[in-house]
Amino acid sequence: MSDPIYPYAQLRTFAVSIFQKIGCSPDDAKLASDVLLSADLRGIDSHGLARLSGYVRLWEAKRINTRPGIRIVHETPSTAVVDGDSGLGLVVAPKAMEIAMNKARLAGTGWVAVRNSNHFGIAGYHTMMALQQDMIGWAMTNASPLVSPTFSVERLLGTNPISVAIPAGSQPPFVLDMATTTAANGKLEILQRKNKEAPLGWIQNREGSPSTNPHELKEGGALIPLGSDYEHGSHKGYGLGALVDILSAVLSGANYGPWVPPFVAFLQPPADPVGSGIGHFLGAMRIDAFRPADEFKHHMDNWISRFRAARPVAGQEKVLIHGDPERDMHAHRLKAGIPLNEKVVADLQALGQKLGIAF
Amino acid sequence: MSDPIYPYAQLRTFAVSIFQKIGCSPDDAKLASDVLLSADLRGIDSHGLARLSGYVRLWEAKRINTRPGIRIVHETPSTAVVDGDSGLGLVVAPKAMEIAMNKARLAGTGWVAVRNSNHFGIAGYHTMMALQQDMIGWAMTNASPLVSPTFSVERLLGTNPISVAIPAGSQPPFVLDMATTTAANGKLEILQRKNKEAPLGWIQNREGSPSTNPHELKEGGALIPLGSDYEHGSHKGYGLGALVDILSAVLSGANYGPWVPPFVAFLQPPADPVGSGIGHFLGAMRIDAFRPADEFKHHMDNWISRFRAARPVAGQEKVLIHGDPERDMHAHRLKAGIPLNEKVVADLQALGQKLGIAF
Repeated sequence: MSDPIYPYAQLRTFAVSIFQKIGCSPDDAKLASDVLLSADLRGIDSHGLARLSGYVRLWEAKRINTRPGIRIVHETPSTAVVDGDSGLGLVVAPKAMEIAMNKARLAGTGWVAVRNSNHFGIAGYHTMMALQQDMIGWAMTNASPLVSPTFSVERLLGTNPISVAIPAGSQPPFVLDMATTTAANGKLEILQRKNKEAPLGWIQNREGSPSTNPHELKEGGALIPLGSDYEHGSHKGYGLGALVDILSAVLSGANYGPWVPPFVAFLQPPADPVGSGIGHFLGAMRIDAFRPADEFKHHMDNWISRFRAARPVAGQEKVLIHGDPERDMHAHRLKAGIPLNEKVVADLQALGQKLGIAF
Repeated sequence: MSDPIYPYAQLRTFAVSIFQKIGCSPDDAKLASDVLLSADLRGIDSHGLARLSGYVRLWEAKRINTRPGIRIVHETPSTAVVDGDSGLGLVVAPKAMEIAMNKARLAGTGWVAVRNSNHFGIAGYHTMMALQQDMIGWAMTNASPLVSPTFSVERLLGTNPISVAIPAGSQPPFVLDMATTTAANGKLEILQRKNKEAPLGWIQNREGSPSTNPHELKEGGALIPLGSDYEHGSHKGYGLGALVDILSAVLSGANYGPWVPPFVAFLQPPADPVGSGIGHFLGAMRIDAFRPADEFKHHMDNWISRFRAARPVAGQEKVLIHGDPERDMHAHRLKAGIPLNEKVVADLQALGQKLGIAF
């Protein structure tokens, strides 16, 4: 049986009500809902409404402050460190991105390291904010340790995504948004629901041996950095995940590595924190700080057209540009509605009942 | 039989003489030699002296200008575009990195896109320049198209490396320096010399099917982006390679994608260039533009120590930090000398004879 489908507007109204109910200002509730729902629209279901009750549980555990005093604690013409005051990452990150874009307007580029924040939804939302300003957007965040470095049994890194959004002219923009692991958690969750095996190279068991069991993480196993194994370059994926961790947290004063507090409220944060909350790293580069924006966009169109026109391998229709599948999904779901699987529906209904808001 | 070993000083003197002989100023010849030899010292043999005769052939083909007027063509407080005037990338890139560091001193960060350049050696040389200034260094470059995007038969990208060097305190620095492919070209060259098969996931043949033949590239085959195949995230490696290409070349006005001129002089550059030469992207971020450098380094030491102390999987001695193997090799070869395989020795001897400089 296929999943029931809900209109976007209905789901957004529900999310806004929930965020207001837990104390967000009307503007913050709308912003948080837009960031959250952008994941559902783009087909990254693991980062959308499926997480709403998780955010509420973190608020109940007093680990999220819904009235944060987000502030710049240090700055130079092209940099800032922002303290998120334990706010929702869904609110803190877009506000930090605005700071980065303001810096870029004056200094050419702006780079903001954020501490004392929480999970910020999909990285691509934040980077795409830069596009309408003719800027290149950058976003990274660290996350709960579920990933083992190459040769490590222990889990020391999160899926630590990197997103970069680059404007084009008549072509749609280039939007990279990738976990630095072989497979993102969302793909694993799909296999868990279907009780299907994972491909070798995605997961290791608690002893560090390759595994195909999608439930391995609950038993002490780990996700594997992009590359799958040393022979295929997993030390590169590990290096990228490490880079995201260092820029997001060591640079900002957030918790890093195994000290990153877990997203789930039933697990306690480490008793010996090395910083505040989780960390993000956001950036904006004004195109015309390098060359005229029109000239750049003309060449981006040429770049994209040439890659799109590449001869595909047998059995594949075409070569894709980053952002293509998510943009198609966004257009489709905005019109046709968003499918939610029955566990998510039950979770949202329970959440609505608890907070007195009909789903 | 093992390869003959040469003292570092002797090899450097030879390289300096060669670069002077083809017209470099004494200072540029020393700089180019330092960058080139840093690859041999760090064990990245494919990017060191093995390429010296290739640079000379490009000069003979009038594709390298050994007296370049390197200049800033556009700038803002935190950005610049540099025209390398067809100079050696070995000279252009460190000079562009100096510009990035000067920008960072005033604006917090500095980002320099370079056009009209040539192959710049190992990316890690340039990023490590930032370390003694308490800055984080970034370097990327595009390169001759040898890599097929996911689902593409055609080769549209280079091995497009990313390096980021991050200072620590009592620990040695974190130095990421990675091709955005599953395996760098150098690893393939080793297999070619030994006539050994490559692991599946490194190479595809001219029809885009997986191959283990290390000679496949000469027959129209291609290297594969980091991830090896779509199921294991090769679209992420493709995205990173694309990002490097766009920042290095679309932002600077260099050639990109399949238009990047080949490193080998016997292949002509495309007749319809979309820019000038090849492109680099260099960056410098002042640590104390974010937080006090001592505080940062203290946490970097803690980060590195924690990752080093991770329990290793059975059969592995320890978890490595990026830069560890290359730093050990550098220390060893500086003292014990640099091994050169017989083909490289013969190549250097022929080069010396041609230019009247004893090897």
